[in-house]
Amino acid sequence: MSRTVQLAVIPGDGIGPEVIAEAVKVLDAVTAGSDLAFEKTHFSLGADRYLATGDVLTDDDLAAIAGHDAILLGAVGGKPGDPRLAGANIERGLLLKLRFSLDHYVNLRPTTLFPGIASPLANPGEVDFVVVREGTEGPYVGNGGAIRQGTPHEIANEVSVNTAYGVERVVRYAFEQAGQRRKKLTLVHKTNVLTFAGGLWKRIVDAVAAEHPEVAVDYLHVDAATIFLVTDPARFDVIVTDNLFGDILTDLAAAISGGIGLAASGNINPAGEFPSMFEPVHGSAPDIAGQQKADPTAAILSVALLLRHLGARELAERVEQAVTSDLAARSGRSSTDPTRTTSEIGDAIAARVAQ
Amino acid sequence: MSRTVQLAVIPGDGIGPEVIAEAVKVLDAVTAGSDLAFEKTHFSLGADRYLATGDVLTDDDLAAIAGHDAILLGAVGGKPGDPRLAGANIERGLLLKLRFSLDHYVNLRPTTLFPGIASPLANPGEVDFVVVREGTEGPYVGNGGAIRQGTPHEIANEVSVNTAYGVERVVRYAFEQAGQRRKKLTLVHKTNVLTFAGGLWKRIVDAVAAEHPEVAVDYLHVDAATIFLVTDPARFDVIVTDNLFGDILTDLAAAISGGIGLAASGNINPAGEFPSMFEPVHGSAPDIAGQQKADPTAAILSVALLLRHLGARELAERVEQAVTSDLAARSGRSSTDPTRTTSEIGDAIAARVAQ
Ligand SMILES: CC(C)[C@H](C(=O)O)[C@@H](O)C(=O)O
Ligand SMILES: CC(C)[C@H](C(=O)O)[C@@H](O)C(=O)O
Repeated sequence: MSRTVQLAVIPGDGIGPEVIAEAVKVLDAVTAGSDLAFEKTHFSLGADRYLATGDVLTDDDLAAIAGHDAILLGAVGGKPGDPRLAGANIERGLLLKLRFSLDHYVNLRPTTLFPGIASPLANPGEVDFVVVREGTEGPYVGNGGAIRQGTPHEIANEVSVNTAYGVERVVRYAFEQAGQRRKKLTLVHKTNVLTFAGGLWKRIVDAVAAEHPEVAVDYLHVDAATIFLVTDPARFDVIVTDNLFGDILTDLAAAISGGIGLAASGNINPAGEFPSMFEPVHGSAPDIAGQQKADPTAAILSVALLLRHLGARELAERVEQAVTSDLAARSGRSSTDPTRTTSEIGDAIAARVAQ
Repeated sequence: MSRTVQLAVIPGDGIGPEVIAEAVKVLDAVTAGSDLAFEKTHFSLGADRYLATGDVLTDDDLAAIAGHDAILLGAVGGKPGDPRLAGANIERGLLLKLRFSLDHYVNLRPTTLFPGIASPLANPGEVDFVVVREGTEGPYVGNGGAIRQGTPHEIANEVSVNTAYGVERVVRYAFEQAGQRRKKLTLVHKTNVLTFAGGLWKRIVDAVAAEHPEVAVDYLHVDAATIFLVTDPARFDVIVTDNLFGDILTDLAAAISGGIGLAASGNINPAGEFPSMFEPVHGSAPDIAGQQKADPTAAILSVALLLRHLGARELAERVEQAVTSDLAARSGRSSTDPTRTTSEIGDAIAARVAQ
């Protein structure tokens, strides 16, 4: 009854290849001797590839990636301000293009303050929630435009597009998550200002809530949500929100739980029509690239999300436990561990999962 | 050489009237015997007025308010979910209508961690920055719409409108502020995703920066900015950003500096074509209204911003110093002071300014 998963691996730019090497190391260690095997195809994509070939993501790249069962991605993006990248938008053309083309409508971002990890908050309390960020709509759709560009009469618009279809499916997913957790769901939006989009979100949450009487539902404006994230994060179990608010809240959530060096994410297509993609929340950090300074923990925790997505819960838990033990041994050091290299951290976690 | 200022006072709903009573008390105390006098007109506006008359803000209200030299506002908004308010949007119809009609293109929100005040951050460091939030454009313009509302085929859009005219004037104001402060300006946007709006903001900041070589300029994506607000707020001096990002960042900024009970703001029309409006950042907090539990400090600090705007710098500083002394006497109690009523805090600060 063994199973082989076709995994597309996109190490990307900057620290991406370094953290992905460790994530793959841990994946290999935890699956060794199990009935789950991974056949990996590496894709060289990102700023470096663009500089070499002029391509960001071709139709052939996309088709090849889409033919896999799942994707593991490191980080993409070159040096900010690099003039050779001025003509490309790696984020939109690669990362967002994958999320949109592969219909990753759930961007799942768990936040946990692991034992032994320092938070910038004086009294963080229990931090254990998950943000279900919509991934294919909102202000991210790319429906912007400008007229009279570069003149004093320029007008630049951005359109946030929200559909009942798109909102309902992600809201349903969030309610399912809440049902399996502490049964609390918080909708975050800005209904008092963005009345059309906010109204749609609010009505759909209310409607789906009626089917889930066991889940307690509340609502926060996005501005107020940032206050509670730093004063009372324990109030959150599942947050459901739009693409842009989710982007903002999950960086803040990562910060209060020890930094983006520990934050994992899944870009999920729940129905499985397209491969889901797992990636650390952090970027390519070109300033520390190639120096073995990056913490691979977020990439390794993304492997745990991948395993859980594939139904290999026991393997996922072994990775999470190995990470928890490794972090506990760091004692209050937050996400930076200056005493070990990227690969030493990967080795330590790989050794723990193999035990 | 005495001067009389016509001040429109809008106490509003909930705790608004309580905090405005104290703000006016301090204003009277600090101006007593000075060459600056205030003639106050009270306007009953807000949820209560709407429930009584069905009006949110009539053309006559607006014209009468616009005829004043400045505005002091408490807070507006009824009980969340009050069914009698379902047909009205007090925030859009009153607060935002004032900001837009009176061309308050600068929403000025200083953030200071006062001595003796507890921050939720373990090591806040020096917190002393000001957010210059654009006030008349962006996703706040109200250019949204929906089709097939209430059906499974609903599409709800929101349009963020950004103009070179609107961005340039607020960016210029922010550079002037930076020039008078620590000479550092941070643009916050999301240029990698909102490429049209973000591109406009970035180009204008770069252009105005060339006229201000003494100001150091940097850029942060809005998600990254939330991280730095909790890990290194000392890096900020002046933040310039759009209407929605400014809304989000200033609530977070208030939270890290002791809570929205202390956060003041000015909605400013710098050219003086329309009266500027000063208000605490907090809302009407209907749950504690009428109980003398609200902290009037944010409203009192808004009076200091009003005085500074009118050129009465010495009086503004007296108010700020009185607040600083009052807060220092609270010793680590954050923004809630359960030992004193709203009016006792107002009395104490009024006594200090009169000294
Ligand atoms: C790189 C960028 C386009 C991306 C986003 O905004 O979604 C990142 O910030 C994230 O959160 O994954
Ligand atoms: C009440 C609301 C419309 C307002 C805003 O979003 O601007 C408030 O949050 C603020 O920051 O003053």
